[in-house]
Amino acid sequence: MNVLVDGTISSPLGFKSNGLCCGIRSSKPDLALIYSIVPAQAVGMFTRNRVKAAPVLICQRHLRRRAAQVIVANSGNANCCTGERGMRDARQVVAAVARQLRVAKQLVLPASTGVIGKYLPVEKILAGVPALATGLNFDRAAETARAIMTTDRFPKQLAVELKIGGKRVVIGAVAKGAGMICPDMATMLCFITTDVKITAAALRAALRAAVADSFNCISVDGDMSTNDAAIILANGLADNRLLTEQNVGFKQFTAALRHVCTVLAKQMVEDGEGATKIIEIRVEGAKTPAEAKRACRQMANSPLIKTMIAGENPNWGRIPAAIGAAGVNFAEKNLEIVLQGQTVYARQQPLLKDYAAMHQKLKTKEVQITVRLRRGNCAHRMWASDFTQEYVRINTEYN
Amino acid sequence: MNVLVDGTISSPLGFKSNGLCCGIRSSKPDLALIYSIVPAQAVGMFTRNRVKAAPVLICQRHLRRRAAQVIVANSGNANCCTGERGMRDARQVVAAVARQLRVAKQLVLPASTGVIGKYLPVEKILAGVPALATGLNFDRAAETARAIMTTDRFPKQLAVELKIGGKRVVIGAVAKGAGMICPDMATMLCFITTDVKITAAALRAALRAAVADSFNCISVDGDMSTNDAAIILANGLADNRLLTEQNVGFKQFTAALRHVCTVLAKQMVEDGEGATKIIEIRVEGAKTPAEAKRACRQMANSPLIKTMIAGENPNWGRIPAAIGAAGVNFAEKNLEIVLQGQTVYARQQPLLKDYAAMHQKLKTKEVQITVRLRRGNCAHRMWASDFTQEYVRINTEYN
Repeated sequence: MNVLVDGTISSPLGFKSNGLCCGIRSSKPDLALIYSIVPAQAVGMFTRNRVKAAPVLICQRHLRRRAAQVIVANSGNANCCTGERGMRDARQVVAAVARQLRVAKQLVLPASTGVIGKYLPVEKILAGVPALATGLNFDRAAETARAIMTTDRFPKQLAVELKIGGKRVVIGAVAKGAGMICPDMATMLCFITTDVKITAAALRAALRAAVADSFNCISVDGDMSTNDAAIILANGLADNRLLTEQNVGFKQFTAALRHVCTVLAKQMVEDGEGATKIIEIRVEGAKTPAEAKRACRQMANSPLIKTMIAGENPNWGRIPAAIGAAGVNFAEKNLEIVLQGQTVYARQQPLLKDYAAMHQKLKTKEVQITVRLRRGNCAHRMWASDFTQEYVRINTEYN
Repeated sequence: MNVLVDGTISSPLGFKSNGLCCGIRSSKPDLALIYSIVPAQAVGMFTRNRVKAAPVLICQRHLRRRAAQVIVANSGNANCCTGERGMRDARQVVAAVARQLRVAKQLVLPASTGVIGKYLPVEKILAGVPALATGLNFDRAAETARAIMTTDRFPKQLAVELKIGGKRVVIGAVAKGAGMICPDMATMLCFITTDVKITAAALRAALRAAVADSFNCISVDGDMSTNDAAIILANGLADNRLLTEQNVGFKQFTAALRHVCTVLAKQMVEDGEGATKIIEIRVEGAKTPAEAKRACRQMANSPLIKTMIAGENPNWGRIPAAIGAAGVNFAEKNLEIVLQGQTVYARQQPLLKDYAAMHQKLKTKEVQITVRLRRGNCAHRMWASDFTQEYVRINTEYN
């Protein structure tokens, strides 16, 4: 597998895209379109929040047939908590795009990100659709990436290539922002394009595996969005022998997809609101995978651990305090805590002597925390952003 | 029930106390003693964190007999994650106090609050014990309250009186700080004194009920401490007819105790790190009490809701997003959200029109959020502090 220089969602064969400003958010690009020149296998994974935005509900319905050709996404408004009117609004956008591109409505997937609880400015979006569709091309990925950004500081996209049975297969992806990102905004979105020829079942299995190890392993603020979506379109133009879960190539494809998702997930953490650090948190020696995950999450969402890392503060006592509250029945005598490669607690003894040296060690962009429970063989790993005054400033300001 | 003007832990009959600086924390008082002139019925409730500080473990052991006469507490060091040496250190302090006051060691309850993972400066504490004990008196409650403070901005104490079967009964209490409070600090502590004559079983039931509705209903940062303790000593000097759970007086006593704990709990939220607001969160119409509690906690710990209130920001969409992530299977069509008395969401429709007016409405010290799930008859109420840049500043700074 190779990472392509300047790779985008248009790197796989047959994917055009476009992005422009239709006026939802005064001057910033706010409307994006991704289009496969032929219908594609499509699967998606969505937020498990009980409150789901209208576009999420429509995607789930359209994806029952596991096929799609177009994604239309807006930023600046989440179209969530908008009831029947929100559903009608999203359907209107889908219909306009379908008409313009002459594809069946069921092949159009809508996505929205932004403020919750306000009606979608549908007229503005409908007015933008013709120019958006007309401008679709193979060199418009940069505009597409910018159009889905909210307070992201940088666009997030990449592409990788791999050989499957002698054929070149490419995966491209674009994403925005971690968790509930900005004052009035919500959601992480990730749209993945690939020219691989694959069964819907295999595509679903690959996406599920990739998301489990990437987007489901990050935390900025612990708030679960109402609009989260990761969607993959596979148009088959690479012309490889059809991939199923039994093929050798399936493993390669899944590994490549996992790499793509992991890079984007880490970029989301890096670009989390006010973030200055990426904290890699590992839990080892748990009894079950669920237990490892629970302990990891407790730490990834602990304001005290996140502020400690922001302050490059070697106050490691906050780590056992957080794990102890995770509802995992470990024995304190087995607990080991490693901070930046140095064991700071083991055999019920505090081992950190030189606080000044640890303070220096914490002056890195990536910080590692490893916790060993020593009661089983299961492990889990997550990435979290640190917690700064800037995060609070962004989220208190009224917009 | 009356609240006593300037009431303290010495307001009930027979309770002396003292506080001084023994040098754990350069110049601030850091060592406190509470003493009943006769042995008292005693029960306590402690953190459910798997990682428990040495003094918590010793208290739990000593309280098996449900009797105590002395509480000795230090700030500046939590004596947690300190293993066998931490246990020996705490036992040494207990032994010194017992010797000095000529009481059995089992009647002495230790408590600590402060940095986790550093050994207790036992020599300093032992050196302070004689003066601490000699200075015990009925007018030293202010010093006692100050000696258990860490970064609390104000001391927290009060006393109430009530009549039980014609006899005057008094309850006094002192507390410190909510959750994991300050850079290197941990814990909330609450020590309650009363002269009521009561069975240990009834005392336990009363404390349990009072704590459930007060200290267990607050959140500053969602981090569960390793040292949390609420301890009550009842020395019987009020000479009422012995209270059992069957007496009429028991209900009165429990109500008064609940009032005392609730006042202190709300003060902890008010004095939470960097806090500028108290958010009262109510969930109504839940199917079970556990479900109501879960939905409440999800909101009380949501950084996005807490920053929204700090910013007096009417961005109510963060509320359904938080409840939707609580793992409660409500139907979105039944969800109702009330902010400062105004319904902002109902029947799947966003109802807030005038954002500027709501911004004005949020400019109060106490903010109310009510969520109705309309699937049952259970409710829960919590108090949470808001989330400010000052919280982050306090917790990032290395000390």
